[in-house]
Amino acid sequence: MKTISKSIKSLFKPYLTVKNGYKGGKGISSTKENQKTYKLSSNENPIGTSPRALQAIKNALNDLHLYPDATDIRLREELVKSYNYQLDINQFICASSGSELIDLIIRAFIREGDEVIVSTPCFVPYKMFSTWSGATVIDVPLIKENYALDVNNIINAVTNKTRIIFLTSPNNPTGSYISKNKFESLMQQLPPNVVVVFDEVYWHFADAENYVRALNYVSKYPNLIAINSFSKTYGLASLRVGYSYMNIEVAAYLRQICKPFLITKLSLEAAIASLTDFSFIKQTVDTIQSEKIYLEEQFDKLGIQYYPTQANFYLITPPTTSNEFVHFLAQEGIAIRPVDNFGAVGKVRISIGTRDANEALVKALKKLKIVSLN
Amino acid sequence: MKTISKSIKSLFKPYLTVKNGYKGGKGISSTKENQKTYKLSSNENPIGTSPRALQAIKNALNDLHLYPDATDIRLREELVKSYNYQLDINQFICASSGSELIDLIIRAFIREGDEVIVSTPCFVPYKMFSTWSGATVIDVPLIKENYALDVNNIINAVTNKTRIIFLTSPNNPTGSYISKNKFESLMQQLPPNVVVVFDEVYWHFADAENYVRALNYVSKYPNLIAINSFSKTYGLASLRVGYSYMNIEVAAYLRQICKPFLITKLSLEAAIASLTDFSFIKQTVDTIQSEKIYLEEQFDKLGIQYYPTQANFYLITPPTTSNEFVHFLAQEGIAIRPVDNFGAVGKVRISIGTRDANEALVKALKKLKIVSLN
Repeated sequence: MKTISKSIKSLFKPYLTVKNGYKGGKGISSTKENQKTYKLSSNENPIGTSPRALQAIKNALNDLHLYPDATDIRLREELVKSYNYQLDINQFICASSGSELIDLIIRAFIREGDEVIVSTPCFVPYKMFSTWSGATVIDVPLIKENYALDVNNIINAVTNKTRIIFLTSPNNPTGSYISKNKFESLMQQLPPNVVVVFDEVYWHFADAENYVRALNYVSKYPNLIAINSFSKTYGLASLRVGYSYMNIEVAAYLRQICKPFLITKLSLEAAIASLTDFSFIKQTVDTIQSEKIYLEEQFDKLGIQYYPTQANFYLITPPTTSNEFVHFLAQEGIAIRPVDNFGAVGKVRISIGTRDANEALVKALKKLKIVSLN
Repeated sequence: MKTISKSIKSLFKPYLTVKNGYKGGKGISSTKENQKTYKLSSNENPIGTSPRALQAIKNALNDLHLYPDATDIRLREELVKSYNYQLDINQFICASSGSELIDLIIRAFIREGDEVIVSTPCFVPYKMFSTWSGATVIDVPLIKENYALDVNNIINAVTNKTRIIFLTSPNNPTGSYISKNKFESLMQQLPPNVVVVFDEVYWHFADAENYVRALNYVSKYPNLIAINSFSKTYGLASLRVGYSYMNIEVAAYLRQICKPFLITKLSLEAAIASLTDFSFIKQTVDTIQSEKIYLEEQFDKLGIQYYPTQANFYLITPPTTSNEFVHFLAQEGIAIRPVDNFGAVGKVRISIGTRDANEALVKALKKLKIVSLN
C-alpha cells in the first residue's frame, strides 16, 4: 500500500478532524438459541410502515432504470394538502432525510469561522456537520434538572459571528420540549440575522399543552426553519426522506443549492402515500401514548429513573453504569442506546416499542433488579 | 406573504448566485393519439434494470421502518469481488449517486477562493457544486475539432490555488475520451497536490484500444480519485447509488465527512445484486455496441453530423437550430437533450436506445430531411 503524499495531506482541511463519523443505534443478534431480539435503539416506528406506502412501492417497481423526478414538487403538493393549505408549496423543501436538510442549511449559511449554538444533550449531526463546514460550535447546555432550554444563556452566547441556533422539540435524547413561552421569548430576543433551525421530527408524539411547532411562527420570523422527517411517525427510516418549511424567500435561496434527483423513486412514492395515511399515523401515535402509560407504571414499580418524554423514547438514568446496563440488556436480546456522545453522560436512551418489546424490556429490568439485590 | 428581512438577506453567501439549479434530461408526453414516446435524453440503460436487482428489492420490502445499514460496507465487499480483489475494501467510498461523490470531494478539498479546472463541454455539476463551495472555476475547453483533452493548456492553467481538476472519460456530452498517453502525460506533469477527479461512469461502453480507467493508476497517484455510478450500465438511475475508489488514506480522510445512512435500504440491495449480474451487464454493453453500428450507418446515410462516441450517446450537430431540432423530435415522440449549458452550444445529445427507439429516431430524421428538402 502506497502511503499518502505530504502534498495531498497539506490539502486536508485542518478542521476536518472528526475521527469517528456518526454512528446509528445498533441492532443486536441473539445471544441465546431461540432468543427473540428487540431494537429499541433508534426511535423507529414500532408498528412498522404504512401499508399504503408499501403498496405504492410495489406499484412503482417498473422503470427503475429511469431517473426519478428531478424535483420534489409532487411531494410538496401532498405536503401542502397535509398542512391544510396553511403553507405555500414553495415554502417546503424536501431532501433525502432530515439530516440532509440540516446539512443543506449549514452549507447555505455557514462560512469558516462562523459560530453555531447547540444545547446539549442534543442530536449529534448539528455539531458534526457544523464542524465539517468550519464553524465553531458553542454549547449552551439544557438546564440540568429538567433539560429545559436555557434561553437566557443562549441570548448571552450570541455574538456577531453567530449564524445558526439549533433547537429540537421534542428533544433527542432527552424527550424534553420547548414551551411556548420559552420559544416566543427566545425568538423575540434573538437578532433577526440568526437562523433558528427548529427540529420537530418527533412532533406527532408531543401532547403537552404548551408545546409549539414552528408552523405558526414561520410567517412572522423569516429566520425560522423547521425540519421534519419521514423516518419516525411515517415509518420510512430505511428510505431516507425528510422535509422542511420556512419563509418563501429563504426557501428560494436554499433551493438554489439543492441537488437534483435527491430522493429515490421508491422513497418518493412511499413518502407521498404515507403522508395522508391518517389511520396509520393515528395508530402510531396511539401506540406510543398507551405504551407510555404502561412503561411509566412499570418503571415506577421498578424504581427506574426516567425523564418525562414528549417523544417516542425515554432518557434513563440506569441503576448501573450505562455500559453495564446496555450490555446486560443486549444479553437479554434488547438493543438500547448509550447517549454519552449526545452529551448525556452515563445515561441511556430507550425507544418505546410494541407491547411485546416493552414487556421483554420490563422482564429484563426485573431480572436486573433481582441480580442487583443478590 | 411576508418578504424576507434585510438581516437574513445579509446572511446569504454572495457566491450562491446560481439562478437555475441542475435540470435533468426531460421526458415527453405524446403529442398525438396512440403515439409511442421514447426518452433518449438522459443516457439511461436502454434495456432496463437487472432482474436480479428487482428481485433483491422485492425480497427487502420487510422492515422498511428500520434504519438501513449505517455504512456501505456490504456494498464495498461486493465491489472488492467485482474488481477481482485488485483494490482494498477501504479504497472504496459509496454514496447516493456519483453526483454526491463529486460534491463530497469538493467539500473535502475546497475552501473559498480555491480554483477548480474543468474542460467544457462537460457535466454541469462539476462547475455548479464547485461554485456552491466558493471556488473559482477555470475552464480549459476540450480541443474544438475532436473534443480531446487539452493537456498543455490544463498544465498552464494550474496555479498555487488549484485544488481539483475534473476529467471525464468517456466524456458527457461529447462521447470523446482521454487517451492513455494524454492521461499519463497529464498526471506526470501535474503538481501532486492537485486532486484529479476521474469520472468514468460510462466506462463499460468504451472500447478504444488506448482508453484507460483510473484503476491502474490509483496506487501510483494518491491525488487520483475515480467516480462511478449505478445509474448507467447497472440500470438503477431511480435508486441513487454511486461509488468511488482512491488511495486508502485519502479515502479515510473523505470517509470522515461521509454521512450515515446515505443509501436507502432498497437501493443498497439493488446495487449489491446488480454488481455481479454479469449477463445483464454484457447484454447492456452488447446492445449499445450493436446499436452504435446501426445508428452510425443510418446517420451516415442521412448526412447527420455526429461525433464518434465511446459512451451510450451521441453528440450531434443538428441540421437546424438545436431548439428546432429538439422541438421537431419531441413532436415525433422522441425526447433528446440540448446541451448548450454543458458548453456545447447549438448541439444536442441523443442517448442510444433499444432498436425500437432508434428506428423511431431514424424514421423521424428521415421525415425531417424530407421536410427540409421541400
